[in-house]
Amino acid sequence: MTKWVYGFGGGEADGAASMKALLGGKGANLAEMSSLGLPVPPGFTITTEVCTFFYANERQYPGELAAEVDAALARIEAEVGMRFGDPTKPLLCSVRSGAPLSMPGMMDTVLNLGLNDRTVLGLAEAARDERFAYDSYRRFIQMYGDVVMGIDHYLFEEALEEAKAEVGCRFDNELDALALKKLVENYKATVRRETGQPFPEDPKEQLWGAIGAVFSSWHVPRAVTYRRLHDIPAAMGTAVNVQAMVFGNMGDDCATGVAFTRNPSTGEKTVYGEFLVNAQGEDVVAGIRTPQPLSRAMAENGSGDPEAAMETVQPHSYGELVEVFDKLEAHYREMQDIEFTIQQGKLYVLQTRTGKRTAPAALKIAVDMAAEGLITEDEAILRVDPSSLDQLLHPTLDPAADAEVVAKGLPASPGAASGKIVFFADDALKATQAGEDVILVRIETSPDDIHGMHAAKGILTSRGGMTSHAAVVARGMGKACICGIGELLISYADRTVTVRGRTLREGDWLTIDGGAGVVMLGQVPTVDPELSGDFATLMTWADKKRRLKVRTNAETPLDANTAVGFGAEGIGLCRTEHMFFQDDRILAMREMILSQDADGRKKALAKIAPFQRDDFVELFEIMKGLPVTIRLLDPPLHEFLPHGAAEDEAVAAATGVDVKLVRRRVAELREANPMLGLRGCRLGILYPEIYEMQARAIFEAALVVFEKSGETVTPEVMIPLVCSAKELAIIKKRIDAVAAAVTAERGQELHYEIGTMIELPRAALRAKEIAEHAQFFSFGTNDLTQMTLGLSRDDAGSFLDTYLAEEIFASDPFRSLDQYGVGELVEIATMRGREGRPGIKLGICGEHGGDPASIDFCHRQGLDYVSCSPYRVPIARLAAAQAALRNA
Amino acid sequence: MTKWVYGFGGGEADGAASMKALLGGKGANLAEMSSLGLPVPPGFTITTEVCTFFYANERQYPGELAAEVDAALARIEAEVGMRFGDPTKPLLCSVRSGAPLSMPGMMDTVLNLGLNDRTVLGLAEAARDERFAYDSYRRFIQMYGDVVMGIDHYLFEEALEEAKAEVGCRFDNELDALALKKLVENYKATVRRETGQPFPEDPKEQLWGAIGAVFSSWHVPRAVTYRRLHDIPAAMGTAVNVQAMVFGNMGDDCATGVAFTRNPSTGEKTVYGEFLVNAQGEDVVAGIRTPQPLSRAMAENGSGDPEAAMETVQPHSYGELVEVFDKLEAHYREMQDIEFTIQQGKLYVLQTRTGKRTAPAALKIAVDMAAEGLITEDEAILRVDPSSLDQLLHPTLDPAADAEVVAKGLPASPGAASGKIVFFADDALKATQAGEDVILVRIETSPDDIHGMHAAKGILTSRGGMTSHAAVVARGMGKACICGIGELLISYADRTVTVRGRTLREGDWLTIDGGAGVVMLGQVPTVDPELSGDFATLMTWADKKRRLKVRTNAETPLDANTAVGFGAEGIGLCRTEHMFFQDDRILAMREMILSQDADGRKKALAKIAPFQRDDFVELFEIMKGLPVTIRLLDPPLHEFLPHGAAEDEAVAAATGVDVKLVRRRVAELREANPMLGLRGCRLGILYPEIYEMQARAIFEAALVVFEKSGETVTPEVMIPLVCSAKELAIIKKRIDAVAAAVTAERGQELHYEIGTMIELPRAALRAKEIAEHAQFFSFGTNDLTQMTLGLSRDDAGSFLDTYLAEEIFASDPFRSLDQYGVGELVEIATMRGREGRPGIKLGICGEHGGDPASIDFCHRQGLDYVSCSPYRVPIARLAAAQAALRNA
Repeated sequence: MTKWVYGFGGGEADGAASMKALLGGKGANLAEMSSLGLPVPPGFTITTEVCTFFYANERQYPGELAAEVDAALARIEAEVGMRFGDPTKPLLCSVRSGAPLSMPGMMDTVLNLGLNDRTVLGLAEAARDERFAYDSYRRFIQMYGDVVMGIDHYLFEEALEEAKAEVGCRFDNELDALALKKLVENYKATVRRETGQPFPEDPKEQLWGAIGAVFSSWHVPRAVTYRRLHDIPAAMGTAVNVQAMVFGNMGDDCATGVAFTRNPSTGEKTVYGEFLVNAQGEDVVAGIRTPQPLSRAMAENGSGDPEAAMETVQPHSYGELVEVFDKLEAHYREMQDIEFTIQQGKLYVLQTRTGKRTAPAALKIAVDMAAEGLITEDEAILRVDPSSLDQLLHPTLDPAADAEVVAKGLPASPGAASGKIVFFADDALKATQAGEDVILVRIETSPDDIHGMHAAKGILTSRGGMTSHAAVVARGMGKACICGIGELLISYADRTVTVRGRTLREGDWLTIDGGAGVVMLGQVPTVDPELSGDFATLMTWADKKRRLKVRTNAETPLDANTAVGFGAEGIGLCRTEHMFFQDDRILAMREMILSQDADGRKKALAKIAPFQRDDFVELFEIMKGLPVTIRLLDPPLHEFLPHGAAEDEAVAAATGVDVKLVRRRVAELREANPMLGLRGCRLGILYPEIYEMQARAIFEAALVVFEKSGETVTPEVMIPLVCSAKELAIIKKRIDAVAAAVTAERGQELHYEIGTMIELPRAALRAKEIAEHAQFFSFGTNDLTQMTLGLSRDDAGSFLDTYLAEEIFASDPFRSLDQYGVGELVEIATMRGREGRPGIKLGICGEHGGDPASIDFCHRQGLDYVSCSPYRVPIARLAAAQAALRNA
Repeated sequence: MTKWVYGFGGGEADGAASMKALLGGKGANLAEMSSLGLPVPPGFTITTEVCTFFYANERQYPGELAAEVDAALARIEAEVGMRFGDPTKPLLCSVRSGAPLSMPGMMDTVLNLGLNDRTVLGLAEAARDERFAYDSYRRFIQMYGDVVMGIDHYLFEEALEEAKAEVGCRFDNELDALALKKLVENYKATVRRETGQPFPEDPKEQLWGAIGAVFSSWHVPRAVTYRRLHDIPAAMGTAVNVQAMVFGNMGDDCATGVAFTRNPSTGEKTVYGEFLVNAQGEDVVAGIRTPQPLSRAMAENGSGDPEAAMETVQPHSYGELVEVFDKLEAHYREMQDIEFTIQQGKLYVLQTRTGKRTAPAALKIAVDMAAEGLITEDEAILRVDPSSLDQLLHPTLDPAADAEVVAKGLPASPGAASGKIVFFADDALKATQAGEDVILVRIETSPDDIHGMHAAKGILTSRGGMTSHAAVVARGMGKACICGIGELLISYADRTVTVRGRTLREGDWLTIDGGAGVVMLGQVPTVDPELSGDFATLMTWADKKRRLKVRTNAETPLDANTAVGFGAEGIGLCRTEHMFFQDDRILAMREMILSQDADGRKKALAKIAPFQRDDFVELFEIMKGLPVTIRLLDPPLHEFLPHGAAEDEAVAAATGVDVKLVRRRVAELREANPMLGLRGCRLGILYPEIYEMQARAIFEAALVVFEKSGETVTPEVMIPLVCSAKELAIIKKRIDAVAAAVTAERGQELHYEIGTMIELPRAALRAKEIAEHAQFFSFGTNDLTQMTLGLSRDDAGSFLDTYLAEEIFASDPFRSLDQYGVGELVEIATMRGREGRPGIKLGICGEHGGDPASIDFCHRQGLDYVSCSPYRVPIARLAAAQAALRNA
């Protein structure tokens, strides 16, 4: 029989950390901590299988659930010696969601559950604090009313403001017991008015209401959005954790806080976190009161007042916390993110989970932990998300730049970003879709702002600390973020922000440095990052483990140099057409296209030839003997022709032909579906002189470099868009003839290879015969994806979002390889290519070459290399190492 | 050791008819006839393997060839008692090409080989006719000079004209021996002037020159064109036949002719053919002198003068010929096309081969021969080329039409055609490419005109008979053709043709009836053909043998009715979008597209719904319970929007929206590659209301028809452009919901199936999961071809010809299924589809559904049906039967 409920507490537990899929991350770790003997309030977890059952059965629960919940509740009561609904010693509970993968801030929580008009008296009695009891009660009604009963929380806040106005105080904690009692009555009246129902008095009814709300919240839009952004399947479901309440708001010997076992921004091994004295947990995360740092060191480092640090004000509890840190890291062998509460001087751990961290922190923690012997080098390699390296490699602010600093705040998430000010998430999204860079400026952020945060280049908030919603989410996204900049006066109504006497408007440019917590006016120039020693260390470890070579897609000297700096082992794709668009060449290219015959084309091509040769000389010199794969002309010719009447005339004048001819040629070359038209090797078949010119330029360049440096260059000439062996055979013969001619003219031996792109489904299917003429294959997975799915990258935008939302596509197939469709063609081509030519060299040069999941696929297929854009080279190196370890 | 030369003659032979691949058609049949004891002049065949060797070894011959040729020549000399090069009794030879597949008029021939200044005297002596000997000699130099030495034949013709002018005569045969001797000297001087070499006197040198010329002519452009048009692989090669000469031009007891054992135009079992008294074979085919019919009956039927018929003037030889006919048909069990020569009263058969015939003739001959017991019904089915049925099914001239007849000629190839006059093959091609219909008007045609004849709708010649080049080629192509219209006065220079005092110019319209030999002015209306009883007989035989069902692609009542008349067993593809383009619906469609939200779209769709339902009612009624597959909306929405500023405004006015909105929507919907964009089920996913409206219209129509007729209709709802099972699952759920709603509203049981097109490579690969949601698959091979080859049907025109000429594509992949690329995906999808749903219904509905080779493929894959355009239904029925027989 299925067990639906798992209990924990009192040094034991039904579950364990390994059961995350069933118990959710929070529940599994509560069970684990309980077994470890850490101070965890007792409780139980309702499994994710109940969530699945719930959605599969029209929101009904399994029949056995109620009895199991009752039994688990009885275990809590026994452990704490209090009873649920008992008017004298009432047990109060928290109800929290807990999905298998962490979803910060996405799911709803209810605290102080079990309070009603009778138990509140018992609580007051037990705590000997009536004010505390009624404050807990009003918080409970407010949370429950909002989360479970769906009442606009604005209504409760209004009542609270009225209550404060009535007694003339400013902060919630200045309200006395009488005022709070009255507020509770107001709240209850609000509930009755809004729902037509009284607030539920029965603690059991409250409990089931909260459980239902957690399960229901699994499908609210913001949860769906978060899952989509993080590739979390909806089928996973959430668990529900019910736990005995402990109180951080019973007095000044109480506190609540969140902490990381290492610094999640930098990775340094220091106590990191915040707390609030006499507060409930939600106060810290919500960012309403700005919390204090834990350690004096952290405070001195710019995060607050050392005299208010936990180390100063609650030194004993601080000591206990540091001990918990050590136990947790030793046990989990990972940096932990914990929530704790101190009730009357006693520390309780309410949650632990793997801490989110910035890319630099992930890198440092992985390398440090390996150095500390906590984990192995292999584990360190697997600990760093390759995609996150992107953040380390991109430019940072130029320290020499003349920047006017207008504000400082908490350095919540590092990185430099420039953008125009926007105040609303929707505006951030719209502006970004229109191609603009924006900085999202908010008093504070909430889960409803996720889409705007994702769209923005950076985020500023005037309230909230280092673990506020904005900070946590921004770090997860790798966005620059500065929090708690109290000096910002934000007016949503006027769409202005005033700081140090200066008023900035929506659309004004700002630059922010999330690592320094500094806000600057305007657009500040950037410089390339200096990579830390940890980076080099991890890369060295990775390079030892990987089998896949990593090349780059580059045609400019800048890109080639950058890629070599990042460790590229060759060029996997040099797109020659990019070389034709430069001012001094486009004219000759147009002359070629406008020519009436092969002779005319040859004359025009002769003008381009020296440029091509020089380009290749430069590339070969940079690559110093590393392999260079050069793709011959690929795009349709109309891409080189003008697009308007005025331009037509300019081209006619410049090339000396009649404008009518220009227009006729533009019209002739127009295509209904250029992606499926006269391009790739079809151009080479129709106009042999184009590829002949390119081949000659490549071969001559190879000999020039050999003469200059003595370095033998073995260019790999790549033919695009092949669909049959015959095409390749025809073109190969012509290129071989060019090579023979160049050899004869120069009297020098020439080394080269001829291969092809596999980018049409037919090429994948006919790979065996094609391989007989090809020394290498390079999978052009961009086009292969377009053809296999019948999906134009340029046009998919109109429905791709819907396809992702409806989960028709698990991820954007142009970002991560569609392994079950396109992937099978790659597999077929790999197998058949090897049949046709044992040991044929195989690589991939689509966008997917820099995507970790796709790299894992390439490793499993046994490809020889991946090729990606220069900045993704380190990502590919790490991903290739992870693939090797994962599939060992 | 390879045997390179095969001898024949004197009632025996080294080869046989079965050895066509090695000996070519002509050589194999000469060997066969020789073994049968038919009167064949002795000779030998140099095999096609020599041709292969020749091209594989830089035009060198195998070392043993010379000795084998010498030995074979000695056998001829022994048989005829004359010696090659003997000045007193010289053996003369013909040298002819002979490929394994008949290539009429494509390869070159040399006659009278062995003549020189000395042997000509021996020939004169032996024939006792000096004039004949010198005429033979000058013909030999002319032919050899043209074909072997590459001298422009115009130069010889000029010399001939001069010779005639000098003696003041009009015809070649009026030149006397003296004049011919002088002409020979002139010819030899021409050869020396043009080539710098004397004309070769050595008969052996002549022989090897001619052999080399035959092999070399295998790769001349017109041979390449012919092979491409007829799908003949170049690797096949040609054989060379060397044969003792017999002379039809030794006097009035001599003749030469060509004959068919049955009428190749109608298929009737009558003697059919032409001959010329005192002439050499080439005179008949070349069409210089208009030949006479063989039989009196044929002459009386409009082909000439009965008094000049062979039956009248050479009754003995005619009798021998009829006997040969019977022997050949009994032996070959096929209609034969023969060449014969009568030398001094003795009949020689120089060639036999399977006779080309028109589609009606093929049909009649097949059915007749089966009735005669010469062949079986199965053989009869296999004898008729399914594609040729097209000619029987298309409209013929309306006999009631008021047509002005301007000329009459020989009914060389049946069929009706209208077109504008052109005079040159290149113009015919150009005009056709520009979308115009043309009639090619020539004095006579030559192999250089093939491409123009292929392009034209019909062909007229002023010279030449029923077996002239024009007639033979036109019948092979199924083109209407009228030959020998002597009253046409054609001026190539003026580009006019004058007839009966009226001058017609290039571009004027003509209509021709090739079956009646009648030329009419202007465009004459046509009527549907009456199908012969033979047609019905053959179809009945075919239907017994085939396993594949044949459906049609139809959405209009006209097409549906036509297809049912041709035997369609259902509709395999009803393209609903065609129903939206009608005037009364396009406006509502545009309103739908211009709507801002689902409600607006629903309102507009509600206007279209009744039309859709009525369309389906009509179709279901025509199809009387036969299956009907309805494809939901497929094309991108922009196809329904206007294309210019003026139209934008009209649409804005008609739909009552701002013209700016119209323009914005047109711009929004524009796509870079519409083929790969927002279309097919992607529309259905984005705008559920469209498919819901269509599903409702289909279901309601089914119930309406049931109510009216009591006939249960089971519509097959087909979802286009599916690439994943999830898409289909989502849409299927919505359609099932519509069905449930309609059932509930009407209280009637609804029968329907839901299936999908397989037209994306990914769909083929994921067919197993897709089949779990699909009751049927229909292969959309048009799109599947586009995606698999990355080839847009609209854009391929710019390079497809080159691809066919370079033999990259064996045939146009949009005409005949690419079995090795697209075909493998069909195979994969078939296999996986059956894994996902055993017994899943499988069909094909691309253009390929009407192509015999593709139908054979579908049979082999075990599909359930093919669907094609109405006029191709009989073709598909026959092709399906042939596939069943061929693969039994």
